[in-house]
Amino acid sequence: MEKSVSPERALELVLQHVPAPGRSACPVEQALGRVLAEQVLAPVDYPAFDRAMMDGFAVRATDAGTSVIVAGEASAGHATRSVVEPGRCVEIMTGAPCPAGTEAVVPVENTTREGDRVRLPDGIRPGRHVQTRGQICTQGARILEPSTLITPLALGVLVSFGRSEVSVYDRPRVGVISTGDELVEGAADPRLGQIRDSNGPMLAALAREAGVADVRRLHALDTQQSLDQTLAAVRDCEVVVLTGGVSMGRYDLVPRMVQATGAEPVFHKVTQQPGKPLFVAAGPGRLIFGLPGNSRSTHFCFVRYVAPALRRWMGRQASVGSWRGRLTEPYRCKSDRTLFVPMRADPGPDGTMQVSPFDERGSADIYNIARANVYARFEPGEHALETGDEVTFAWMNEGHG
Amino acid sequence: MEKSVSPERALELVLQHVPAPGRSACPVEQALGRVLAEQVLAPVDYPAFDRAMMDGFAVRATDAGTSVIVAGEASAGHATRSVVEPGRCVEIMTGAPCPAGTEAVVPVENTTREGDRVRLPDGIRPGRHVQTRGQICTQGARILEPSTLITPLALGVLVSFGRSEVSVYDRPRVGVISTGDELVEGAADPRLGQIRDSNGPMLAALAREAGVADVRRLHALDTQQSLDQTLAAVRDCEVVVLTGGVSMGRYDLVPRMVQATGAEPVFHKVTQQPGKPLFVAAGPGRLIFGLPGNSRSTHFCFVRYVAPALRRWMGRQASVGSWRGRLTEPYRCKSDRTLFVPMRADPGPDGTMQVSPFDERGSADIYNIARANVYARFEPGEHALETGDEVTFAWMNEGHG
Repeated sequence: MEKSVSPERALELVLQHVPAPGRSACPVEQALGRVLAEQVLAPVDYPAFDRAMMDGFAVRATDAGTSVIVAGEASAGHATRSVVEPGRCVEIMTGAPCPAGTEAVVPVENTTREGDRVRLPDGIRPGRHVQTRGQICTQGARILEPSTLITPLALGVLVSFGRSEVSVYDRPRVGVISTGDELVEGAADPRLGQIRDSNGPMLAALAREAGVADVRRLHALDTQQSLDQTLAAVRDCEVVVLTGGVSMGRYDLVPRMVQATGAEPVFHKVTQQPGKPLFVAAGPGRLIFGLPGNSRSTHFCFVRYVAPALRRWMGRQASVGSWRGRLTEPYRCKSDRTLFVPMRADPGPDGTMQVSPFDERGSADIYNIARANVYARFEPGEHALETGDEVTFAWMNEGHG
Repeated sequence: MEKSVSPERALELVLQHVPAPGRSACPVEQALGRVLAEQVLAPVDYPAFDRAMMDGFAVRATDAGTSVIVAGEASAGHATRSVVEPGRCVEIMTGAPCPAGTEAVVPVENTTREGDRVRLPDGIRPGRHVQTRGQICTQGARILEPSTLITPLALGVLVSFGRSEVSVYDRPRVGVISTGDELVEGAADPRLGQIRDSNGPMLAALAREAGVADVRRLHALDTQQSLDQTLAAVRDCEVVVLTGGVSMGRYDLVPRMVQATGAEPVFHKVTQQPGKPLFVAAGPGRLIFGLPGNSRSTHFCFVRYVAPALRRWMGRQASVGSWRGRLTEPYRCKSDRTLFVPMRADPGPDGTMQVSPFDERGSADIYNIARANVYARFEPGEHALETGDEVTFAWMNEGHG
């Protein structure tokens, strides 16, 4: 087990212990937000036939500037027997297959109807407003690669190919365990010395936001027996996130009990603020995170370490990248560790990100930072930044918020 | 009804017709991603008692540098009768209420145990590692304002206040109608002239991604009767999104049939590419969008007009802002309308957004652009941009992708 690792090394170690993702078949219409686990090739030419791209008339290009007979019509979804010949056009709707002989489609607004004839404009470019078979993609073309997030657009592509199922990466089951005798469930009234367990619901929400569907939430007391039972109850969860019980006090059973489940410790402590006591263990096919119980530490550790592990687990890129913005007010800070500070980033009128610090009240304050959407990063040392100075940040979630 | 409006005017008109959002109570643990419809005040001081922030010893500051008797212990969640007096400390766990007489908490790692005594470090600052009652927020403090998105962090705040329900803005029901005789459902095999309906599933996915829970999907043929029946079937949907049937051909019944439902036309046609034939109508408490049937037009019109309307409907900021990035390769384009081009944006190593165009094949190509996550915007005219030139863009969805 490594001790007191850097934030970079900690993330690297976490990601090294993520197993190769599993995959399953998923109905396409339920695949929004899932991650593709196969390469998708175009099964046929698209479009499958020469297709009109405007409502108008299918014509011969050489008939430009003349009046031609409207010899039939072709509408979307219906086959037509009409044929385009010199002096004869076919009325056509957007999406309809072009009749034999079509050289171009002239939009209806560029024509003048004259009884059973229509006057065509001058200069008709051959191929205009016609999409030829295979023009967009030919059979066998590589359209979507594995690890692509299935957005609405990608889902549309899959449906248009007639796919009813698609191979996607599995999502791990996540168990969230809040530890501590002092915790009471949200609805109960805390007695003196007790506090409501807000970390559990917050961590479960973070896991859902990261795309996990199966999140179980439990509470363990600060006893060996309770922790043991709780860990046993999430035995089938591939990712377990505990909050509390990883710092130095005598009730800090978590690292010991986690190892008793058969998981190997990966590291303990990170040279970061908040979240210094972070403990990570890896079992066969599992990852167990012991997050500090402080709400802000636990939130930060999830965002920085658990969320990237979940993303990689589901076949996605672990990192969401490092961003830059400019401070909307002066900011001073000092730490001997790498400091991560919740702030609010919004795009400014000139397109650069405007980053605003909060008037926060210490390391347990989730109230005055409740609208934060990024963690700004400061290297160890003292920083005195002015309005407009650049800061580096990472989003708290992929949805940026 | 206005005609051929600018993209700015079109968005303004759409947003003007969004009714004031309704609100309902929602269980807090289901409120992730919903939008707060109330102002949340701190119901009590937080913390509610003086609280140890480290595992260690509650001490008198004046005992610094001496060895003191460990006179008891205070653990989180348990009341203690022990008292801190000169020469006597109390062992304390993170989160525990500080015993009477506590002036500071000394972390265990800064002390040396000597039997039933403990040696304290020199220089103990009064108040160190103690969070005093109300330090983070006092009763009545304004914590969350209406229209705040309920992130995991905000959810944690609500739970810590003991809230089991919270007032959130309602989400509209959305009906998606794909129109066209040529459409077949995804699983069926299209005959000549037919195509699979990929717009319906894509639009439904876009609505879900925008946060809508109740999305109904229907298909209408190009007949008055079919369209009439289909519109009747989504009578209870506050937002109706039709795709196809808004351009100039004789089968373009949509604007007429939408008006027959009692909705007033707001505008028809926008000086944009794609999506010129966009038609919008507003009924009492409803918005009806007639999107062009071309897949790319329909996607773009949803992203630019329907999604902001849904966001405002749900009490959120309609706009996700305008962003800037730099092209990763040269790009040329020309249009007499405002041009919106699907591209891919990713943060570069220096934190600026890198924007990549696709090798796309025309206005119906969703295949070669399937990984797009932004719409780059170009004003009317001709543009010849080089690698590194700046482009303005908007994300395709809030999750950026």
